[in-house]
Amino acid sequence: MKIVPQVSLITIIEVVAILVGAFSGFIEARRKRMDIVGVFIVAFITAFGGGTMRDVLLDKRPLFWVQHQEYTILLFVVAIIAAPFIKQIRHIVSERLIVIADAVGLGLFAVASVSQALAAGMPLFVAAMMGVITGIFGGVLRDIVCNEVPMVFRDGKPYAICAFFGCWFYIGLQYTSVSDDFALWSSAALITALRLISWKFDLKLRGP
Amino acid sequence: MKIVPQVSLITIIEVVAILVGAFSGFIEARRKRMDIVGVFIVAFITAFGGGTMRDVLLDKRPLFWVQHQEYTILLFVVAIIAAPFIKQIRHIVSERLIVIADAVGLGLFAVASVSQALAAGMPLFVAAMMGVITGIFGGVLRDIVCNEVPMVFRDGKPYAICAFFGCWFYIGLQYTSVSDDFALWSSAALITALRLISWKFDLKLRGP
Amino acid sequence: MKIVPQVSLITIIEVVAILVGAFSGFIEARRKRMDIVGVFIVAFITAFGGGTMRDVLLDKRPLFWVQHQEYTILLFVVAIIAAPFIKQIRHIVSERLIVIADAVGLGLFAVASVSQALAAGMPLFVAAMMGVITGIFGGVLRDIVCNEVPMVFRDGKPYAICAFFGCWFYIGLQYTSVSDDFALWSSAALITALRLISWKFDLKLRGP
Repeated sequence: MKIVPQVSLITIIEVVAILVGAFSGFIEARRKRMDIVGVFIVAFITAFGGGTMRDVLLDKRPLFWVQHQEYTILLFVVAIIAAPFIKQIRHIVSERLIVIADAVGLGLFAVASVSQALAAGMPLFVAAMMGVITGIFGGVLRDIVCNEVPMVFRDGKPYAICAFFGCWFYIGLQYTSVSDDFALWSSAALITALRLISWKFDLKLRGP
Repeated sequence: MKIVPQVSLITIIEVVAILVGAFSGFIEARRKRMDIVGVFIVAFITAFGGGTMRDVLLDKRPLFWVQHQEYTILLFVVAIIAAPFIKQIRHIVSERLIVIADAVGLGLFAVASVSQALAAGMPLFVAAMMGVITGIFGGVLRDIVCNEVPMVFRDGKPYAICAFFGCWFYIGLQYTSVSDDFALWSSAALITALRLISWKFDLKLRGP
Repeated sequence: MKIVPQVSLITIIEVVAILVGAFSGFIEARRKRMDIVGVFIVAFITAFGGGTMRDVLLDKRPLFWVQHQEYTILLFVVAIIAAPFIKQIRHIVSERLIVIADAVGLGLFAVASVSQALAAGMPLFVAAMMGVITGIFGGVLRDIVCNEVPMVFRDGKPYAICAFFGCWFYIGLQYTSVSDDFALWSSAALITALRLISWKFDLKLRGP
């Protein structure tokens, strides 16, 4: 039982996912011409929405942004510092970099959630869905608040489905003798790779 | 105390309501040209949204789709099998049949929720509202995700109000000597009948 | 420890905030041409949405509208009585009065929530955010259900930010020797004053 390294692993996972999520919320809220308060709250919802939904569904308290008050303060400070430079940041940060960071966030966040759901005694299929929900619901809530049909449901680009496969891969690894660290990182890497490959080759899901 | 039959009664109630709800979410998501992932998740939200909201508000865990993992797997398998045939299914299944199945689902689901709310010690008025909320919030969440004003709030067709009367009928029956099975079925039947009668005669609620 | 006066203080706070919230939900739902059921439910969501979200996030049960069934019944009865006279009421009640009542509700509701969040052991920054969330999320949920981008995020008028400053003022007062009653009322008054001043002089926040 290596408790300590695993906690710090999940901490890294969460901080990366939070900053990437906040950035996407920030951009979308600005596009909708929201004021500074709206932009901050949408960034906050995008960053913490998926994890909050997971915690509410699992009835886990304190919520992870309550337990780690430093995350919310970090986000607040970053938002205040970054706000005036957001145009310059967008010119420096290419779309490619955003997609890559987002894919890393998706993988890490989804796998962390499956891990927590299994630890909370969820059945396997539910745990896999919890991973997917956590991975995508920040963006879903962002789009609902911005009065759009959620992008992840309509753009046909494989996203949730990459998380779904990676979550099952992680669950499968629980029945092998690999270490939990390896299971976490390899599953997250698989999700990130699936996402980047499908983006690179512009793969599309069809509607039913 | 006939615990076992009542549990199976509520199980039947939930499965019917889930499949009907999922179908309506599926249709609405396709109309919005969502991809396969979006269609499945909207079907899932429509099917489980009302019950999940009830469970979160009552703080009941595990959520019923977690406790009954088989429901989520059933829905997943049905969605995968049914997706390619959805056009044919829509031609076979008349609007009349959808309205009838939905009315049955509304009655059964609302009454099951009032029963659970009373068992959880909710006050009477709150229990009645919990029945209504559960009966309609799957559809409300579906419409919010699909970026529409919820149909149930604007089409003027009696729907929530049928559930409201039936829920009070069920509460009233608690003060009589009728069996709980009779109370459940007769109240659900009353809601279904009110809904079908108001649909048949095209009754309309006015705005205030 | 003056428990009794403080409880009644918070009761007054909540009733004022509920009626003001319900009225704004009622007006917005009518503007969207909803039927009587939609109007009532949107009024209910606007009135109780912020507090319900606070209670769900803090995992506090029973929800305050469950604990105080009389609030929901009050709202129901008021809605039924007021509905036919809503046009006349709008002519009598000036916009000025609505803004003032809403500002009072914002102040009282936000401060009451910070107080509860601190009592529940939340960290300071989280408690301040909980006050803001509670103060604005009734309106946010109202606008989401009415299929609008939330007004509070886009109109540039200081609203959430007034609550934010007032919540920190209340938190600061915890470290002084003033009574809790004084802290509650003065902080609520500060929020109300900030809101009314920024409304009076038509102050605007810029987008980032």
